[in-house]
Amino acid sequence: MSEAKVVRPPGSVAAEPMAGEGVKDVMKRVLISPDEGWEGWVMRLFEIAPGGHTPRHAHDWPHVNFVAEGSGELFMDGEDLEIEKGSAAFVPAGVLHQYTNTGAEPLALLCIVPERGAG
Amino acid sequence: MSEAKVVRPPGSVAAEPMAGEGVKDVMKRVLISPDEGWEGWVMRLFEIAPGGHTPRHAHDWPHVNFVAEGSGELFMDGEDLEIEKGSAAFVPAGVLHQYTNTGAEPLALLCIVPERGAG
Repeated sequence: MSEAKVVRPPGSVAAEPMAGEGVKDVMKRVLISPDEGWEGWVMRLFEIAPGGHTPRHAHDWPHVNFVAEGSGELFMDGEDLEIEKGSAAFVPAGVLHQYTNTGAEPLALLCIVPERGAG
Repeated sequence: MSEAKVVRPPGSVAAEPMAGEGVKDVMKRVLISPDEGWEGWVMRLFEIAPGGHTPRHAHDWPHVNFVAEGSGELFMDGEDLEIEKGSAAFVPAGVLHQYTNTGAEPLALLCIVPERGAG
């Protein structure tokens, strides 16, 4: 790991489709990671198209979120919680969760995870 | 430390003025921290008024940033780097840095730091 002074303009990181079962219309950009010097953590930006969603799943690492654009729902453990531009969230390890874009605009959200959860 | 399923709507966390020498017109909100279960890290949202800035200083912990609104400059180690809505940045430990709002609108940026840098 090295440390780098980095500014990434919007859109400067290539987007790739989020892979895996239960995913619909989600693009992923890795913004900051151990490659830049953030030891152990990765900040990704997900863009979910209207009607799209991430998988409904659980894993043994947490998520830290911030909604950059749009609106939708964050399902956690049986509850649908509204999220909108400017919302922050914490999804503890082990909690069943899913992000869904229920709005008419793209839902852009940061999702910060430990390095082992960033694959 | 406990873990909490948390969604924080925008504006639901009270803002407090950023304290310290060299600060001008900066408000701070602590969005997610070890109080919610994020072990060792804190995500703050800073709002810098037009013409405002954080101190020009260095410390032995890094910053991870994402610009939520507005535009400005991130000074790092002798360079003024433009930042705008959607920019991400990594400021390594030990690097002299400062955030300045050079635009006409508020500059809102996430600043993620280790717990020991969040005081």
